[in-house]
Amino acid sequence: MELLKRKIMSDGVVLSDQVLKVDAFLNHQIDPLLMQQIGHEFAKRFAGQGISKIVTIEASGIAPAVMAGLELGVPVIFARKYQSLTLKDDLYTSTVFSFTKQTESTLAISSKHLNAQDHVLLIDDFLANGHAARALIDLIGQAGASIAGIGVVIEKSFQRGRAELDEQGYRVESLARIQSLSGGQVSFLD
Amino acid sequence: MELLKRKIMSDGVVLSDQVLKVDAFLNHQIDPLLMQQIGHEFAKRFAGQGISKIVTIEASGIAPAVMAGLELGVPVIFARKYQSLTLKDDLYTSTVFSFTKQTESTLAISSKHLNAQDHVLLIDDFLANGHAARALIDLIGQAGASIAGIGVVIEKSFQRGRAELDEQGYRVESLARIQSLSGGQVSFLD
Repeated sequence: MELLKRKIMSDGVVLSDQVLKVDAFLNHQIDPLLMQQIGHEFAKRFAGQGISKIVTIEASGIAPAVMAGLELGVPVIFARKYQSLTLKDDLYTSTVFSFTKQTESTLAISSKHLNAQDHVLLIDDFLANGHAARALIDLIGQAGASIAGIGVVIEKSFQRGRAELDEQGYRVESLARIQSLSGGQVSFLD
Repeated sequence: MELLKRKIMSDGVVLSDQVLKVDAFLNHQIDPLLMQQIGHEFAKRFAGQGISKIVTIEASGIAPAVMAGLELGVPVIFARKYQSLTLKDDLYTSTVFSFTKQTESTLAISSKHLNAQDHVLLIDDFLANGHAARALIDLIGQAGASIAGIGVVIEKSFQRGRAELDEQGYRVESLARIQSLSGGQVSFLD
């Protein structure tokens, strides 16, 4: 997605070989028009797949997911992140480790909102090591729902998440694929 | 806003005299079309006010804020919530106590994204005791920015937040004002 790549080049900040900061338009400050265009692009790529629901994670996944949900005409569920959680019967839960924060947290979705009839599009802001995606896939599996695919705003293709999801047979659509952040420079894969 | 009131009546769950659960369309599962209509309503009420930025809080404020930002043509910043935070020079921070969770957390906004030239619309999903709104007002004050008004999706008018903000002279626009949740019933103020 050219517009997104241009935004990454103009407003993204390379903090290290591993870390790209996009808090100017995606992770802290949000550019609503860009989110609308991202939602449109996800909707186009996953049109006609019988998607009944979008699942994402708080907080940065919400804006692109809601814009995609608006275009696809389906509800969006955001998994909540808890540092500690008293387990309840009415929740699907899965643990996830964040490399960025070096902490483990629990993701949870209410069982009331997801069931075996659902065909789900996963959306997240970043795909790096794939831990968050794996936890979401686990939650959706607990509901017995099926997965239409995974929509990612920014993929760090040099980390292992994308390759693993490909191997597992998931359809992954990443709007910007970053090959490298070496030398303070963003290089895209295509 | 009639559509929102109807949604509260049909999909909201009164858990107690104090607590209305709206996780079917706002706080966990999100109805994107309703969010678009909410964004439209906020944009209409605050049109022509010279708003340069919308500020909200993760996670449930993001969807209505981004839809309003899309219509007003301005960026959205979501304050991040931290259980613990190492203070840094480039952050405005304010502490907030959550009655629902009975925990204190720190809200933070990067100083890079908000400055004295900004005229800010605050948006949040709920207004109850007003603690979150007060913390956001504090953050915006630290930036030296001015406040155009406060847009609230659901106001619990029987709690003190609204009255306090009125007394302080802020313009508050709440799309649904709840007078009472007594006896398991939602009563609206108007």
